[in-house]
Amino acid sequence: MRDPYVGIMKSRILQRAPGVPVVDLTHAITVFHPEEAGYWLYCCCSQFPAGTVHVAVVDPGVGTARAIVVLSAAQQLFIAPDNGLLGLIAQSDPQSRAHRVTVAALESLGLGLHSATFHGRDVMAPLAAELAAGRLRAEEVGPAHTLVRGGLQPAEEIAGGTLLGTVAVIDHYGNCLTTIPAAATAGRTHARLRPEGAVLRWVRTYEEAGPGECVALINSASMLEIAARRSSAAALLNVLPGQRVYLSRS
Amino acid sequence: MRDPYVGIMKSRILQRAPGVPVVDLTHAITVFHPEEAGYWLYCCCSQFPAGTVHVAVVDPGVGTARAIVVLSAAQQLFIAPDNGLLGLIAQSDPQSRAHRVTVAALESLGLGLHSATFHGRDVMAPLAAELAAGRLRAEEVGPAHTLVRGGLQPAEEIAGGTLLGTVAVIDHYGNCLTTIPAAATAGRTHARLRPEGAVLRWVRTYEEAGPGECVALINSASMLEIAARRSSAAALLNVLPGQRVYLSRS
Amino acid sequence: MRDPYVGIMKSRILQRAPGVPVVDLTHAITVFHPEEAGYWLYCCCSQFPAGTVHVAVVDPGVGTARAIVVLSAAQQLFIAPDNGLLGLIAQSDPQSRAHRVTVAALESLGLGLHSATFHGRDVMAPLAAELAAGRLRAEEVGPAHTLVRGGLQPAEEIAGGTLLGTVAVIDHYGNCLTTIPAAATAGRTHARLRPEGAVLRWVRTYEEAGPGECVALINSASMLEIAARRSSAAALLNVLPGQRVYLSRS
Repeated sequence: MRDPYVGIMKSRILQRAPGVPVVDLTHAITVFHPEEAGYWLYCCCSQFPAGTVHVAVVDPGVGTARAIVVLSAAQQLFIAPDNGLLGLIAQSDPQSRAHRVTVAALESLGLGLHSATFHGRDVMAPLAAELAAGRLRAEEVGPAHTLVRGGLQPAEEIAGGTLLGTVAVIDHYGNCLTTIPAAATAGRTHARLRPEGAVLRWVRTYEEAGPGECVALINSASMLEIAARRSSAAALLNVLPGQRVYLSRS
Repeated sequence: MRDPYVGIMKSRILQRAPGVPVVDLTHAITVFHPEEAGYWLYCCCSQFPAGTVHVAVVDPGVGTARAIVVLSAAQQLFIAPDNGLLGLIAQSDPQSRAHRVTVAALESLGLGLHSATFHGRDVMAPLAAELAAGRLRAEEVGPAHTLVRGGLQPAEEIAGGTLLGTVAVIDHYGNCLTTIPAAATAGRTHARLRPEGAVLRWVRTYEEAGPGECVALINSASMLEIAARRSSAAALLNVLPGQRVYLSRS
Repeated sequence: MRDPYVGIMKSRILQRAPGVPVVDLTHAITVFHPEEAGYWLYCCCSQFPAGTVHVAVVDPGVGTARAIVVLSAAQQLFIAPDNGLLGLIAQSDPQSRAHRVTVAALESLGLGLHSATFHGRDVMAPLAAELAAGRLRAEEVGPAHTLVRGGLQPAEEIAGGTLLGTVAVIDHYGNCLTTIPAAATAGRTHARLRPEGAVLRWVRTYEEAGPGECVALINSASMLEIAARRSSAAALLNVLPGQRVYLSRS
């Protein structure tokens, strides 16, 4: 939000789709980290109604050959560069389908000419407006497309039935949000940062943690989170994004 | 705004009250400081029309037994946790009344099931939408409730007719905003940071201050403020929130 | 956005012009630097439709004799204090005209009484609403007015046909945005930070830069920009706003 780039995109959206509600999710993704944006979107999208069009412009490869894609998943649409950002969302819905945006489709919308450095403004915002206004369907933007691999991967089961996940982002409070969904825990409640490390106590609310204690809980996005009471778990535990998290039955 | 929590709340509001104007006041309250949020709201609310519904989610006790309340004051409604945040506003209107939100009321709105960690999303945002849409009245959320004491207190008169107030927040410019309202000054114009300290010169505009000089003025919220010219009074005077301020006739 | 001043202005706008779309451009201008705000507005305004009303409140002189003006340029309106902020925009359109806001005009809108410290709220926001709603025309706010000189100046041609410009702002990514428009380059592609300094390679996209290399390109606002690949050119080159930039044919 420091720079006017977001406001410019909103202008483009509102010119093509007047009156459409536009909700900001975040403009503070660590620069050049698409996986952080993808994780937040994966955690948030269920809070938006069917038919929502999400736009995610974390695009260090702007102007190169990387594709821009429209992903249909969970009855919503996601527009983003194909750089790993949409991996978690695509893998979360077996019915998800991606389409690659073609120059021909853009030209038919009067978007043939665009800058080499700001496709959020020139391509993604106008496409979002057309999709939100119902004048364009996802499959009309171009051919079916297989997303590149890369970025964050879903938590996986390893030896001994342990779930291995990753701290995907550290939020404003210092909470460490992981890739382990509540639905996958299946009764596992022993969370550790190292295979033989100390177990983080499993609680239900932040206030149950003692002073200076770091705990594990299922957060409001139904994901495993490592947190502290009125303090930063990331600072207390010296955790950075990418930290592995082990969840087991004992 | 770094995290998507605000956007998620807006999604919840707009799903229940499409088209309602939503205005952000601030998302940069010092974490876990409800009194800072309450002070800003107290200073701002007169700038909003009658019937406005304010939502203030600075809620370190989320998931514990602390109440969520709806306060009716000055022809507006305020939804917040009962943690001192609403104290200044409630005390500013002798007609103010608070109601405690009950589980029964939430269940009647389909809000019976909610997370233990994000009541802003699960309770306060939907309640705000229902109240703003006129489908719910404040007294229907639950029984009358007496707010907890605590948080910032209004300025008070001490020995010698001096008003004793507090620096409540430091703003973006380094201005020190106090709890002393213009209406209470009654001709007092001698502001000091210590009972026998130097008097801050009383001015009308920021530009009247000399280079490096800190001054006292009545700000746009009609509150006593300590400020400097194109500089940070907080830095020049080494003031932090909580600093006492003395206003006397000589 | 840390403080509620922006939300208060939106409340004032929406009370006078319900339903008007309000788009935030930036609230992170370096405090007391009108020229930074003016540069961004100059770069952005073509992305907004004819009839847009822009409000720019970077106003260290609030409460003094400085004028508040309404500038008509490029089929849009710009409301700002007359402190140099609007210089680049006014000079970019030979048809531009400024009008000085008078007390009489304000009184006719019920805005006669206002604070000495927040004209954004008391004057500029309500004026913007009246202009956007079509109830007021720019020439009705007061007499024609000649803007003060000062602030950023357009790039100029110096000895040897070289264009001399300035780094106006450093953005979130560390890109250095200059006052040299693409339309003025006329084939010049040799950009330097000192008259006899090293030439920055001329590229089309950020990704064409090598690791650690700083390059020159025409950005999405059609301005000369000095950038690096997934890194901060400002940090790599130790550039601050105000840095001179030389663009020549060899």
